[in-house]
Amino acid sequence: MVGRNAFYAQSGGVTAVINASACGVTQAARENSDSIGNVIAGHNGIIGALTEDLIDTSLESSDAIAGLRYTPSGAFGSCRYKLKGLDENLAEYERLLAVFKAHDIGYFFYNGGGDSQDTTSKIAQLSHQRDYPLRCIGIPKTVDNDLPITDNCPGFGSVAKYVAVSIREAGYDVASMSKTSTKVFVLEVMGRHAGWIAAAGGLAHEQEGEAPHLILFPEITFDESDFIQRVDACVARHGYCAIVVSEGLRNASGKFVADSGLRDAFGHAQLGGVAPVIAGLIQQRLGLKYHWAVADYLQRAARHIASKTDVEQAYALGRAAVEMAIAGKNAVMPTIERVRDDPYEWAIGEARLEDVANVEKTLPRDFITEDGYGITESCRRYLSPLIAGEDYPPYRNGLPDYVRLQNAPLAKRLDTTFELD
Amino acid sequence: MVGRNAFYAQSGGVTAVINASACGVTQAARENSDSIGNVIAGHNGIIGALTEDLIDTSLESSDAIAGLRYTPSGAFGSCRYKLKGLDENLAEYERLLAVFKAHDIGYFFYNGGGDSQDTTSKIAQLSHQRDYPLRCIGIPKTVDNDLPITDNCPGFGSVAKYVAVSIREAGYDVASMSKTSTKVFVLEVMGRHAGWIAAAGGLAHEQEGEAPHLILFPEITFDESDFIQRVDACVARHGYCAIVVSEGLRNASGKFVADSGLRDAFGHAQLGGVAPVIAGLIQQRLGLKYHWAVADYLQRAARHIASKTDVEQAYALGRAAVEMAIAGKNAVMPTIERVRDDPYEWAIGEARLEDVANVEKTLPRDFITEDGYGITESCRRYLSPLIAGEDYPPYRNGLPDYVRLQNAPLAKRLDTTFELD
Repeated sequence: MVGRNAFYAQSGGVTAVINASACGVTQAARENSDSIGNVIAGHNGIIGALTEDLIDTSLESSDAIAGLRYTPSGAFGSCRYKLKGLDENLAEYERLLAVFKAHDIGYFFYNGGGDSQDTTSKIAQLSHQRDYPLRCIGIPKTVDNDLPITDNCPGFGSVAKYVAVSIREAGYDVASMSKTSTKVFVLEVMGRHAGWIAAAGGLAHEQEGEAPHLILFPEITFDESDFIQRVDACVARHGYCAIVVSEGLRNASGKFVADSGLRDAFGHAQLGGVAPVIAGLIQQRLGLKYHWAVADYLQRAARHIASKTDVEQAYALGRAAVEMAIAGKNAVMPTIERVRDDPYEWAIGEARLEDVANVEKTLPRDFITEDGYGITESCRRYLSPLIAGEDYPPYRNGLPDYVRLQNAPLAKRLDTTFELD
Repeated sequence: MVGRNAFYAQSGGVTAVINASACGVTQAARENSDSIGNVIAGHNGIIGALTEDLIDTSLESSDAIAGLRYTPSGAFGSCRYKLKGLDENLAEYERLLAVFKAHDIGYFFYNGGGDSQDTTSKIAQLSHQRDYPLRCIGIPKTVDNDLPITDNCPGFGSVAKYVAVSIREAGYDVASMSKTSTKVFVLEVMGRHAGWIAAAGGLAHEQEGEAPHLILFPEITFDESDFIQRVDACVARHGYCAIVVSEGLRNASGKFVADSGLRDAFGHAQLGGVAPVIAGLIQQRLGLKYHWAVADYLQRAARHIASKTDVEQAYALGRAAVEMAIAGKNAVMPTIERVRDDPYEWAIGEARLEDVANVEKTLPRDFITEDGYGITESCRRYLSPLIAGEDYPPYRNGLPDYVRLQNAPLAKRLDTTFELD
């Protein structure tokens, strides 16, 4: 007996380990072919479902699927496309059910952040209303680490490790040059409104004097004068100053600091780049030689230095989603539950999608030191296990040998097309 | 019998592997204590010699010295300080000899780029003129890979690997997002006037369609219209476009493109950052969504993803310098000689310092494709072995466990001080 098919899609910004979840889903489904038939993937995320642009994963070899575990990015393509509410655009949800029905899809796995969990929850509601049997399971993913309930989000631990490793390495570099050259180094990191990634930089600061010396969090209003004084004092004391700044840093009027500085040759504000603004400010106020880096996508794609913990959790959550679906669960998301900090132990838990959707978990104030520029011991205790362990990909010709799937299209079964909103 | 002391200093921008050379020097010297006494290091490079700010490396444990092999940056401190010509500032050279004499230094090892080899050559001349017995050996180092005679320069292979790995990973990321989001990604890399590092990005492009799609070299004048057309065509064909741009890119009037764009809030030109200029240009001309990254020091400090070939060569050159000195050689620099491309074989060669000093080796035109945006097969054949192999550092708490030396100061023996020029 072969089970009904499963639909799997990747959503939003991709990560170093979202494919590890895809690997877990596909391998678990293949091992349970009496419950689940083919895993059909959405080409470019949920858009693939809406436009019936589907990928037949049964044509991928087991080696290729295994390779997803060490391949960054979204192997089936992802998208930034948020479904509206059921009342606002019911046609989209109807279309999804029509496509699912045409392909005998009985399981819906959606791998994404808060918005995606909200979508999954709505699809579960509608399929229930329409008596279409569909088990809807969310799989968490976001480098921003801002989902509630789950202890952490797959993708975050690897960015965290990249940022901590990078600021340590750059800190060593600047320390050796500071006598006659660069005295200030500024590293810009992602995280939007949440300072989790910036906080992870703080893990590199294990001993007095080590980089980073100052962290600028989106949760703490930027106070230019206070900051400049601290940079000055740091250079006086240690000879140099290494800074991690979050892209989401805001000033007292609530404006992004990134937007306040650079203009292009035509006078247009230049989007992105808070690091050059901070570095320029230090140069103007203190006259110190600076360098800055913006890691941008490098940080979230850096599978070469992924956290082993993160890879294992991403994979386990993919498998758990399938197991929950087979067990008859619906409208839930597997989570990471922390059993113990040290030695670190974790287990798979379960959250209801309606409790996860649209709730943003920001960095607690007591994870930031009182002065607003560092991380506390409780923050370190939380973050440290998430970057633990290395999980190196295989190399060929000196480069990571990441897989590319065939992504063979599944024949369409509907004679209607669908225009995206 | 104990030999005379050796002086070792690090010069210019540091790298992921310059400490591997320091490791080779120190270990080889310790193994040959009948020929070489203590290795005395300059604190912050040659400035340490001029100001008699010297480090007693005999107090470092053999474990700490071994740890230099996997620790990026300059463990004794480096500096950007170029000694003038013998005619222009003889006092500096006299001072160096006075310090060397006071500390019974019979060997001078200077680890740096072209300027440093020039300095080493001049010190060899002067000590000969003054009948002060000193064997002067240069040790090559520069991420820019622009020294002549040697097949390549330690430090380059690891930056090359970092850049190739990073653009591959970012390319995977953008490919998966391009349907609805970012279509263009721009990575800025180092290299000053030489396109070696930019060319290394091209190693990631192993198959048609893979990132990077376009490389902007400092050797090729930037032609805005032609470039924009190619970006447009690339997005039409592949859905996205990943670009590597060298910081040294110039336009037809010879100006750095980096200087032509961004202004700070006060209208001052913003130094550094050719990537945002290129990305902004694409946005203006094609209206495509973009992201950009500036890796800056992260690329040259990235010991976590160092090339094994590079680490081995840096270490071997340090040892070879000591062996040459013991063998009575003077005013030479050990080099890398390529024996064979594939399978790659190399040996240690030898160059006269006067042949190395002040000669800049730029990327040959036939290493760049005719259209000016890619690398040729001969370039790939040259570069590929230099990024081969991984040489991971040990980790603790999820972070590379790099060493910090004690850097204990050696007691001063001169009662005169020296003012730096």
